[in-house]
Amino acid sequence: MMHPFDLRLNVLAQAYRDGRLTPREVLMTVRERAITLNPTFNAFIHILSEQELEPYLAALDDVPPASLPLYGVPFAIKDNIDLAGIATTAACPAFAYTATEDATLVAQLIALGAIPLGKTNLDQFATGLNGTRSPYGACRNSVHADYPAGGSSAGSSLAVALGVASFALGTDTAGSGRVPAALNNLVGLKATKGLLSTAGVIPACRTLDCVTFFTTTAAEASQLLALTASHDPRDDYSRTNPAWNGAQAFGTPEVGFRFGVPDTLEFFGCTQSEALFNAAKARLMALGGVPVTIDFAPFLAAAKLLYEGPWVAERYHVAGALIEQQPEAVLPVIRAVLNKAPGTDAVATFDAQYRLQHYKAHCDAILANLECVLTPTYPRPVMLAELAAEPVKRNSDLGYYTNFMNLLDYAAVAVPAGVMENGLPSGVTLFGRAFTDQYLLSLADAFQRNQSLALPGGRQIDLVAPAGTATNDRMQIVVCGAHLDGLALNGQLRQRGAILRGAAHSAPRYRLYALADGKRPGMVRDAQHGAAIAVEVWDLPSSEAGSFLAGIPAPLGLGKVELEDGRWLTGFICEDYGLQGALEITAYGGWRAWLDRGM
Amino acid sequence: MMHPFDLRLNVLAQAYRDGRLTPREVLMTVRERAITLNPTFNAFIHILSEQELEPYLAALDDVPPASLPLYGVPFAIKDNIDLAGIATTAACPAFAYTATEDATLVAQLIALGAIPLGKTNLDQFATGLNGTRSPYGACRNSVHADYPAGGSSAGSSLAVALGVASFALGTDTAGSGRVPAALNNLVGLKATKGLLSTAGVIPACRTLDCVTFFTTTAAEASQLLALTASHDPRDDYSRTNPAWNGAQAFGTPEVGFRFGVPDTLEFFGCTQSEALFNAAKARLMALGGVPVTIDFAPFLAAAKLLYEGPWVAERYHVAGALIEQQPEAVLPVIRAVLNKAPGTDAVATFDAQYRLQHYKAHCDAILANLECVLTPTYPRPVMLAELAAEPVKRNSDLGYYTNFMNLLDYAAVAVPAGVMENGLPSGVTLFGRAFTDQYLLSLADAFQRNQSLALPGGRQIDLVAPAGTATNDRMQIVVCGAHLDGLALNGQLRQRGAILRGAAHSAPRYRLYALADGKRPGMVRDAQHGAAIAVEVWDLPSSEAGSFLAGIPAPLGLGKVELEDGRWLTGFICEDYGLQGALEITAYGGWRAWLDRGM
Repeated sequence: MMHPFDLRLNVLAQAYRDGRLTPREVLMTVRERAITLNPTFNAFIHILSEQELEPYLAALDDVPPASLPLYGVPFAIKDNIDLAGIATTAACPAFAYTATEDATLVAQLIALGAIPLGKTNLDQFATGLNGTRSPYGACRNSVHADYPAGGSSAGSSLAVALGVASFALGTDTAGSGRVPAALNNLVGLKATKGLLSTAGVIPACRTLDCVTFFTTTAAEASQLLALTASHDPRDDYSRTNPAWNGAQAFGTPEVGFRFGVPDTLEFFGCTQSEALFNAAKARLMALGGVPVTIDFAPFLAAAKLLYEGPWVAERYHVAGALIEQQPEAVLPVIRAVLNKAPGTDAVATFDAQYRLQHYKAHCDAILANLECVLTPTYPRPVMLAELAAEPVKRNSDLGYYTNFMNLLDYAAVAVPAGVMENGLPSGVTLFGRAFTDQYLLSLADAFQRNQSLALPGGRQIDLVAPAGTATNDRMQIVVCGAHLDGLALNGQLRQRGAILRGAAHSAPRYRLYALADGKRPGMVRDAQHGAAIAVEVWDLPSSEAGSFLAGIPAPLGLGKVELEDGRWLTGFICEDYGLQGALEITAYGGWRAWLDRGM
Repeated sequence: MMHPFDLRLNVLAQAYRDGRLTPREVLMTVRERAITLNPTFNAFIHILSEQELEPYLAALDDVPPASLPLYGVPFAIKDNIDLAGIATTAACPAFAYTATEDATLVAQLIALGAIPLGKTNLDQFATGLNGTRSPYGACRNSVHADYPAGGSSAGSSLAVALGVASFALGTDTAGSGRVPAALNNLVGLKATKGLLSTAGVIPACRTLDCVTFFTTTAAEASQLLALTASHDPRDDYSRTNPAWNGAQAFGTPEVGFRFGVPDTLEFFGCTQSEALFNAAKARLMALGGVPVTIDFAPFLAAAKLLYEGPWVAERYHVAGALIEQQPEAVLPVIRAVLNKAPGTDAVATFDAQYRLQHYKAHCDAILANLECVLTPTYPRPVMLAELAAEPVKRNSDLGYYTNFMNLLDYAAVAVPAGVMENGLPSGVTLFGRAFTDQYLLSLADAFQRNQSLALPGGRQIDLVAPAGTATNDRMQIVVCGAHLDGLALNGQLRQRGAILRGAAHSAPRYRLYALADGKRPGMVRDAQHGAAIAVEVWDLPSSEAGSFLAGIPAPLGLGKVELEDGRWLTGFICEDYGLQGALEITAYGGWRAWLDRGM
């Protein structure tokens, strides 16, 4: 079913700028469509009335479309996130209250020009991964009527998949922002904890909760994250985003990136899921990735702690009083989960936190040598009938690859990876160290453009990515002198956790000098009379580059060096005045050859 | 009472290298002295026998003194830290076991040449701040018989203060490595959590515990930290030390460093403590520090959580089984503290963790604009008789300025700050953000040399510090072009949390060029024909410098720039080839003047 508008951020922005659409036209149309579709899908708990929409539309009346990055963009809000003046229910009518102010993130988005369309359905108190645990009706899948939408952010995924919102806000503690993405052919971004404010969000597990974006493309999620990831004094768990993770990331990934693949994979017998995962792995390899088999046991062990450990008490912290006073106000399945909490004591709580730290130490060590890990997003889809028969077991199956993520403090992007024979979407997840979100999104972007899978609404992704460079928490440094592997100052790199990427040569446009101190070379660009100089490329944690730089004495410094393959990387440069008394040694082709000259 | 040897690390090392002493001679002498003093002070639970010492001495027999940085250095070990083959008691005989291997840190120190002299007395299970809660006898103060040594690392502080060990290992959860330092005229380093391995240490609160060093000087603590702070795979809570915090730090602090001083100070009526604190504040100002009054309420609120909150359950995690099986095996005062634990549930535990995070968000914001905070180490000393009368209340008084530190994840150095009229030592604490340990130690070093207070044993500190530069987690960057305050690229600094330190001029040895792109200047050193160029110095978080550097296009880079005051700071440099087509604008004196030329 073709959607009425192409709501992708860049397409919609162009239509507004060209005067082909107005926010009023778009919002009224998607509102009508949402109202029409809702009896089938139960996506919305509340769709804003025309009257409620009017102030948002009026606010844009005299604003030039190009002046706001999200001008007139319709978005949906999971109903555990506050929108001022509207009820927040958490899918529990007895718990509901009218929000007096916007959640910080909602306020940010509105200030950027976006327009809230409605509040979306969810598994009650965001406790569930399937989207059927709601008194507002079960959410069916956007593609196949026998399957659930996935949860807990079920309605938010549907709002995007059904073409009534450009993006939607979900929340994610155990996978609630990723499982519904996979089941509805969407990108689901669970950014690093603390990057997106949770102020004004009803907690599930406050130490683990993240707000998420559902979009049709990774590029849109990247843009939204770049616009909104900022420190929020209203959120005690807010964290400052390092600048390397601050900008929207595009670009072809650098060949040779290493992605982990679990040594044991679980599909609960679903051969189609397995085949789609293997195809996704092959696609990452085609993009230049190198698969690395990793021990998946500590990730799975951490995952088990989420519902078998004390973190359930965090959920009880929110809903416990209601359960004690009006048990019937809370769904039996939610009560069953939460009622485990009061039996846990503080000693057991800390014990579980120690165990988590133990697993995390293992998992962190595994991730230290990888750019990301690739897993399925869910092992196999479950049908609505199966969920009805075994509501806890089948729900828990869906979280097999998602439950550990927030506990371990990783960033994750769920990205579409094809469809089953019955049309049901499947997906994979790319995850990695905290604060590598934009890098993961750039990989997801390349992956998505590579597979040219149909987007929701039957549209196609642009196969060519805009130019841009994806950076993560490491940076490449070109060294040409005493920092070369095994030489006098190489320890300055190794003590900072740097890894040798390989030997290389500069472009044939450099001269090399032995400085007057005899201990260091100076590499000087000379486009006319230069030569190719032997260098090494090292991967250095970005956070350690400052102290490395601080320790470099004049006349050397770090600038940009052109390599033989045309890339300009950060590397050693030399000020001109420092060549006084220096000896030109370009003919040796490199510092190491110069040192070995007498041998 | 003059100690038999000057056991300071550098003095002892010189004596060994000069052949004036041997490890055997030193160890036998300090061992005899420890045995003689122990009935008075109860410092040791176990002093190694000659037989037990022999393997350590024999291992050094054929080793040149200069080949090991801690060659022949006697050290004492708090008896909750494992030394292979010796009982670890935690001051609870019923809990004792014979250690089968060394704690990681003990093994590191022995490998560096240090020799363990014995296991020291402590408040049972490291629960206490006074050093009297031990079945092995109460530890009296090293200077004044009416006062306690302070605890829980009582015996370790005494071992150093009484001149039988160069340094000693303590542990610190609530102040156990700092309060005894203050009461015995010592430096106590509670380094950032995770920098010193806790593998092989009996936990108190495992999420908060730190191993500490007691030394007579900050320079020694700095040296020990630089030698031993490394990631330990045996310790799940181990953290990697950033390189800026990796090297021993000396040197005069840079003028203008900002130190926080609590807006309300508590001395429980002790005017001498107050006077000594005010003198310490004046000394920091004399060293160039600028005091900044800070809201101390969130720090105190966090402190209250330590014993009134669920963290007591962590202590119960260790000793609970014993208390349940043999209550009489645990001292009544310890039982009284720990028995609060079983009443706390998981919901309350998370609730307390939320509250801690709330206070931490406030405290972190306060620390963001400071280099450190200065507080007293204890508000007033308490007498042994007072402790006997009110064992919990008086103990808790001692922790007024220490209890919040580990909860908030800060680094702290307790440093001597003079003596009371009765001779009892007092002290102050310098604390700051995690991973600023060496910077704090450099301030403590400068502070200690400035006050020329007598060291334990009646010796004097060297008033002149070795040359060296203290760095913390920020670095200075000299900018001369589009990054100047308010200009086109200034946002690249501000978005990284950089703070303007001030305008300055380069040394009069630079030429300034407007590059051919018209947008950027190149600053080029010319010692003969240069001029002073207007620049600005910005303070940039070191972890953000890498991405800042990565974003600088050729021909510019970051090297070292000489300022008019003679300092060489990291700043913008320009490669010679980049001057093609450039216009010399040195005569304008700066980029801003060049931009304003037409106005």
